[in-house]
Amino acid sequence: MKKILLFIALFSAINSFCQTDSTFIRKVYDEALERGEAYENLRSLCKDIGARITGSAEAEMAVKWGEKLLNSYGFDKVYLQEIKVPHWERGTKEAAWVINEKGETYKLDILALGGSIGTNGLISGEVIEVANLEALQQLSENDVKGKVVFISQAFDQKHINTFHAYGGCYPIRGKGTNEAGKLNAKAVVIRSLATPEDDFPHTGTMHYDEGVNKIPGAAMSTKNATMLSAWLKKGKVTLKMEMDCEKFEDVTSYNVIAEMNGKDNKIITWGGHLDSWDVGDGAHDDGAGIVHSIEALRILKKLGYQPNHKLRCVLFMNEENGNMGGKSYAKIASENKEEHICAIESDRGGFLPVGFDINGTEEQVKFVNQHKELLSDFELFRFKKGYGGVDIGPLKEFYPDMIQLGMAINSQIYFNYHHSNNDVFENVNQRELELGAAAMATMIYLMDKSLK
Amino acid sequence: MKKILLFIALFSAINSFCQTDSTFIRKVYDEALERGEAYENLRSLCKDIGARITGSAEAEMAVKWGEKLLNSYGFDKVYLQEIKVPHWERGTKEAAWVINEKGETYKLDILALGGSIGTNGLISGEVIEVANLEALQQLSENDVKGKVVFISQAFDQKHINTFHAYGGCYPIRGKGTNEAGKLNAKAVVIRSLATPEDDFPHTGTMHYDEGVNKIPGAAMSTKNATMLSAWLKKGKVTLKMEMDCEKFEDVTSYNVIAEMNGKDNKIITWGGHLDSWDVGDGAHDDGAGIVHSIEALRILKKLGYQPNHKLRCVLFMNEENGNMGGKSYAKIASENKEEHICAIESDRGGFLPVGFDINGTEEQVKFVNQHKELLSDFELFRFKKGYGGVDIGPLKEFYPDMIQLGMAINSQIYFNYHHSNNDVFENVNQRELELGAAAMATMIYLMDKSLK
Repeated sequence: MKKILLFIALFSAINSFCQTDSTFIRKVYDEALERGEAYENLRSLCKDIGARITGSAEAEMAVKWGEKLLNSYGFDKVYLQEIKVPHWERGTKEAAWVINEKGETYKLDILALGGSIGTNGLISGEVIEVANLEALQQLSENDVKGKVVFISQAFDQKHINTFHAYGGCYPIRGKGTNEAGKLNAKAVVIRSLATPEDDFPHTGTMHYDEGVNKIPGAAMSTKNATMLSAWLKKGKVTLKMEMDCEKFEDVTSYNVIAEMNGKDNKIITWGGHLDSWDVGDGAHDDGAGIVHSIEALRILKKLGYQPNHKLRCVLFMNEENGNMGGKSYAKIASENKEEHICAIESDRGGFLPVGFDINGTEEQVKFVNQHKELLSDFELFRFKKGYGGVDIGPLKEFYPDMIQLGMAINSQIYFNYHHSNNDVFENVNQRELELGAAAMATMIYLMDKSLK
Repeated sequence: MKKILLFIALFSAINSFCQTDSTFIRKVYDEALERGEAYENLRSLCKDIGARITGSAEAEMAVKWGEKLLNSYGFDKVYLQEIKVPHWERGTKEAAWVINEKGETYKLDILALGGSIGTNGLISGEVIEVANLEALQQLSENDVKGKVVFISQAFDQKHINTFHAYGGCYPIRGKGTNEAGKLNAKAVVIRSLATPEDDFPHTGTMHYDEGVNKIPGAAMSTKNATMLSAWLKKGKVTLKMEMDCEKFEDVTSYNVIAEMNGKDNKIITWGGHLDSWDVGDGAHDDGAGIVHSIEALRILKKLGYQPNHKLRCVLFMNEENGNMGGKSYAKIASENKEEHICAIESDRGGFLPVGFDINGTEEQVKFVNQHKELLSDFELFRFKKGYGGVDIGPLKEFYPDMIQLGMAINSQIYFNYHHSNNDVFENVNQRELELGAAAMATMIYLMDKSLK
């Protein structure tokens, strides 16, 4: 009899625990969907500030914006964490033309790749097309010298998750210019890393190895790339290009941090990145992650949640071209002997959230999946092993046992906008954004409650 | 030893069964994403035909379009199923203004509700606002007679699935005009059944009870409704309206049907609806479902699939204002003593598919969930008890034991477009549409293989 009573008591306790979770999470969603501030905050970041690459006035305005907004919510602590970040500017000249053997001329839609050197005036060269980075690496200096290398690899549309298609093409943007420079090419132009065929060029970071001959690199729209391939099938094509982008000395900037105190000093960190590329509004990448992260903390505070651990929301700086925010944050955490148990990132846009990817052990994947049934009521379904995020990534070096989670978001349209002039506030849906904020708050709450 | 061998053999068989399924479904997705025809077919339906309410020339053009397209794919059988459908026309006059006590005048964005009578010239009346249908039903004839009833119920944004918000407001559109007619109101105007605050009015079906005093009904944009409520807080408002919409005699139309023969004559039916409202392109509602359905059969044929059962793709006519296609199809099936085991519908737009809702017993829900693990690799996660669809619904009467499935699709943006001039081809994303077609083909394949 005693055993049965104990069982009933235990069952009731578990049941009430689950009920409480479900009730609390329902309140999180109500707050996000009915009285949410994420959408207006995103409008402000996108339109009152704008695109905000590190080194720009906008990036520094964004730091002030974040600090002021976090202070306005009255969190336990708001502070800046000083870091050094790169400073690269696109400049004012950015144009390219292709000319075929008949003398027909076509102006391309291009963007310099982030970090590229300028052309120092108008340059010109015969175009040589290569299918991908491996094809380029198989060429010799004779094939390439003095020419403009055009890398035409397109997204593999068969991938259901478009981040896999992006990953497949990433090397042409990250390494293509460097590899062609080794062979003394004149410049590199790539097909933009984007899902659709349209007129928007997409920028993104690239890298020069120490000591390699630096040449300019740019991306053209996917429509341009398809057209250029067609032209090259018919004969020689010359490409003329001018860009005056330039790298300057590193500058000081900041991660912007807000905290809510817990019963202990173990830390749950989450965030997105405050910087963006210097085009569009940086709305999906990663204005959405910034307002998701701020809104999650606002909601938890509004609902009077008393955390077990220290909750820390971080607006990371410089994810796009150096990740100095993420690297510095991890180093400082380790130096301060902080105890980090979990980190969560939102950096896949403001579209519909579908779950969380888990960077951790099989046991940690199971640990997160204990909440799967509960979360399915809130239309969150996917809790698989995967990647956390660039900003939180460096923490893993110092805290290999921590759980890292990346919010999984419908990826189908992300690379229509990513790193382009098309990544504007108008392309973010209010409800999808609000659901992302609610999902972040929910996962922070569940990790805080269930992690020892 | 024998037992162990048997076990191993059995395990291998199961394993190879699963492997085969996974490999086949991967091919379905490759075909849809790399060589898909759904997007071009949708462009053609939306732009070569356009909006296609029953009784319109466009609806009959759409029948021809569907028949020709299905024939071009060389399916085993393509035929038309004759039905009678309503014929209602919006006419050319459709305008409304509100005028406050200061004489300030504002022109509203309105659409007549589908099936409404016209105003027979310009009508005018004092506006009386009610919060919802229940509030209207509590009024007496004295409160309402000669006035224009404005029903201002808005979507409850707290619902995660927007179809629940739609369901909550559905009575004001479906029944509001009829209820106000009973009280001898002059006309009814409602806040559009839509998610966002914007300038698009949304139409949709409404119903007059036999013998009730028929009055005109229209929907205004959500922004207009918010403004009108604000005006009414300050004083009296008069509404003037003219509409010359009209109902005509029923006409002949058709369900368009294609079949692939199976090893037996048990039938798996799936489809969407070919008709749409008379505004926009009918792109998400339900051009998407039509091209999902056609593409699913095209892909299965292209991959050389040999079905166990008869596979039947149905382009249903008249879902929007009568469901004569669905009702007739079910009746004819029963009269012909067909054996229907499963029906699947796509009528929730061309957005990201997330799973299937199951209209069936707990056992049937479990039956579908046997494929859950496999389907999660294709980013389909949700397989819960729910609604199948309007077109396939009537089959349940005659075949109560069949499984019905409704493709579950990201609902967040659907009611921005639904039944409005905003439901155009340009608002459909190619990859999301293609994934919907692949999901339909996948579920048809799995049901065909696993249902006895």
